[in-house]
Amino acid sequence: MNRLFAYLFFLLLLFPFSLPAQNSDSTIIRSIYTYALEQGKGYDWLRELTTNIGPRLSGSAGAEKAVQWAKAAMEQEKNGTVYLQEVMVPHWIRNDKEELAVISKGKKTPLRICSLGGSIPTPVNGLRTKVIEVKSFEELAQLGTEKVKGKIVFFNVPMNQRHISTMTAYGEAGKYRWAGAMNAAKYGAIGSITRSLTLALDDNPHTGAMGYNDTITKIPACAISTIGAESLSKILKENPEAEVVLFMNCETLTDKKSYNVIAEIKGTEFPEEIIVVGGHLDAWDTGQGAHDDGSGCVQSMEVLRIFRDLAIKPKRTVRVVLFMNEENGLKGAKKYAQASKESGENHIAAIESDAGGFTPHGFSSESIDSTKLTKLLNWKPLFQPYGLYDWDKDGGGADIGQLKDEGTLLIGLRPDTQRYFDYHHTEIDTFDKINKRELHLGAAAMASLIYLLAEYGVK
Amino acid sequence: MNRLFAYLFFLLLLFPFSLPAQNSDSTIIRSIYTYALEQGKGYDWLRELTTNIGPRLSGSAGAEKAVQWAKAAMEQEKNGTVYLQEVMVPHWIRNDKEELAVISKGKKTPLRICSLGGSIPTPVNGLRTKVIEVKSFEELAQLGTEKVKGKIVFFNVPMNQRHISTMTAYGEAGKYRWAGAMNAAKYGAIGSITRSLTLALDDNPHTGAMGYNDTITKIPACAISTIGAESLSKILKENPEAEVVLFMNCETLTDKKSYNVIAEIKGTEFPEEIIVVGGHLDAWDTGQGAHDDGSGCVQSMEVLRIFRDLAIKPKRTVRVVLFMNEENGLKGAKKYAQASKESGENHIAAIESDAGGFTPHGFSSESIDSTKLTKLLNWKPLFQPYGLYDWDKDGGGADIGQLKDEGTLLIGLRPDTQRYFDYHHTEIDTFDKINKRELHLGAAAMASLIYLLAEYGVK
Repeated sequence: MNRLFAYLFFLLLLFPFSLPAQNSDSTIIRSIYTYALEQGKGYDWLRELTTNIGPRLSGSAGAEKAVQWAKAAMEQEKNGTVYLQEVMVPHWIRNDKEELAVISKGKKTPLRICSLGGSIPTPVNGLRTKVIEVKSFEELAQLGTEKVKGKIVFFNVPMNQRHISTMTAYGEAGKYRWAGAMNAAKYGAIGSITRSLTLALDDNPHTGAMGYNDTITKIPACAISTIGAESLSKILKENPEAEVVLFMNCETLTDKKSYNVIAEIKGTEFPEEIIVVGGHLDAWDTGQGAHDDGSGCVQSMEVLRIFRDLAIKPKRTVRVVLFMNEENGLKGAKKYAQASKESGENHIAAIESDAGGFTPHGFSSESIDSTKLTKLLNWKPLFQPYGLYDWDKDGGGADIGQLKDEGTLLIGLRPDTQRYFDYHHTEIDTFDKINKRELHLGAAAMASLIYLLAEYGVK
Repeated sequence: MNRLFAYLFFLLLLFPFSLPAQNSDSTIIRSIYTYALEQGKGYDWLRELTTNIGPRLSGSAGAEKAVQWAKAAMEQEKNGTVYLQEVMVPHWIRNDKEELAVISKGKKTPLRICSLGGSIPTPVNGLRTKVIEVKSFEELAQLGTEKVKGKIVFFNVPMNQRHISTMTAYGEAGKYRWAGAMNAAKYGAIGSITRSLTLALDDNPHTGAMGYNDTITKIPACAISTIGAESLSKILKENPEAEVVLFMNCETLTDKKSYNVIAEIKGTEFPEEIIVVGGHLDAWDTGQGAHDDGSGCVQSMEVLRIFRDLAIKPKRTVRVVLFMNEENGLKGAKKYAQASKESGENHIAAIESDAGGFTPHGFSSESIDSTKLTKLLNWKPLFQPYGLYDWDKDGGGADIGQLKDEGTLLIGLRPDTQRYFDYHHTEIDTFDKINKRELHLGAAAMASLIYLLAEYGVK
């Protein structure tokens, strides 16, 4: 017996306006899921992208290889038009020296760190100085220049375990990675150490983008593993006079030419109405970028393959965009949005997958045109059999967010969040952390929603 | 904006009968989740059970250690009464020899297998004979004695990828593991090889219980890894005359004394109304039994700890039961149900966690008294913020299923199913496959539901 559905059906009888024409749609969606689960190619594609290419930060040789690989892989499918969109991207490199040790009472304890993306290096001979631990920007401000000047600030702010979605916890703590250095430098600090953004207690430092403010002195910024953070904090409690020595030789080179990789099928009835689906092709240099965001790329690529093999001819144009440089600049997304604006294109909807290749739980959405959101929610019952219950969160994604001003309906695939920050931006974001079925369920969810968007539009 | 909730709220305004008194309940549930996520102990307990003890099949030294460990761990909490319930259990052991090789055109190819639990051994010198591959019991029957006699039957039936829940796929294919040997023997086969029950293509054979029929000759039965199954199938297609050599020296010893481990807190108002929460303490000898079912045990143990530390005094009696021998006999569950019946106990509800320590998605349920199911579903909105959307499936669990005749409301925790059969009954069902937060979310879900059951009963 299916009690919930009986109940929902009872409600729907009373509220027939909320019942779209779902019979054939549900059949098509079922066929999409079956195909993705039985014959999905995303997992094999992802193995190639992550294990043959691996790290692919903007400007790197890996990024260039990834562009050529994605273009060739989509061309090989002989489905739609494949092309590259040129874009200039930042070129930051880590180099070979990342060392932190704390020295207390004559004992030197090494701690695992990694430079944050965009950071300047330390002087060649490193920094050696005292450390001051803070739990917030407010505490830093209270300490002020007198207590901070000449020291390294240690932002030891754990992500909050109580949140059910780890994305919420990341959203809260993320500012200490992005803005730690510029806030510390305001008070004369000479370096910044941020506790890694993860809910796990382990020894993997998590990199990620950090920013500078042009009016504030630039200082080196790194992330410390959570085990390292606990050790450092313990040593500082025992001995506030402890010093650290920090070496980083990362550097920013001149911008480099790179590309968004694009493939599209023209709509049969409304080709001028465009639906974008994408992820980002760049990935941090520390790991293989399997969950972040190789998964989103291959899931997006899968959509066109599924449509072709199931003979789904979308009425509206479906365009796969693999964005370059999401991680440290969003240059690919900005370029895409700008070029599209200049040519007067009409993006009715855009879907992004950039939260890991885990079991999908739903879609988040946003639009400055709220009627589009209502239309989207009407389709929710079609996705109930596939575990996509979570349609309540706001937001689309960083790359497609550049299309917001157009009034585009922005949609984010929302997978399970529990394990994402165990791997995010580390050397363990590798292919073996991917489950084939979870990955392919995400592709099926996106293909199903894009089918509906292409069939019915957003008005 | 929270659109779904606005919509639900609108519906609830129209249907106030479905709105229980949820304000303080929602606060208590939130506090249970916060405590479980911030201060849960299940993960540490599970590390002890899986890495200090590990394999613990009924009758083994590991099982005995697990009993003593669980008793001591719950006694150490000084919360409720802890006791052992004696039960005689089967004692099957694998021993040291499990080998399969296929010999075709002079070439010998070893393939990975494991004996199925309960199987008899092969003769000491092994079996060497031809193999006949079948895709169903129907195909086997069509082949009949003429084609089958003297051969080993190879049940090469993959689990069906198209199902969204892997549990459905397992339910369908499971019969070839349990009943493969007895069906093959009906037609004179001398051995049985079953394709491992997993959706992954890898080289881990999956053990599990198999059965004999007293009127049919007993023959040795093993499981082959899915990669092994593909290889064997390929070789047989090339050369139907290929032979296999099979060695297994497993054996069944005499039954052994073991125990269910039980801890209970008496209800403050209705102590005679009992709510059971449990998992099974035994685990297959091949791995550490981390997901199956160490997770369910420590999640159940957590319930009492959470109640104590949050000062929740249940109105009805809450009893943790760690069942012995779920995997190959259900003797613990049968003993528990029988003893309870004899002493006239009243189990109003029983919750089982035996589907892995993954992100919980909901609860399944069954009862011969359907009013209890209605009451259960009324609580669903309270669990919406925690991702527990899936309340539609029938069933409780194998151990608590023994209480069905009493009219007990049987409830199963339903976690994400995608990865479960990657590990199930193999050497890779180990502690490192557990995510701490996912495990603790399951404990919180169970504790929250038990709080409601204890507060309001099931009438």
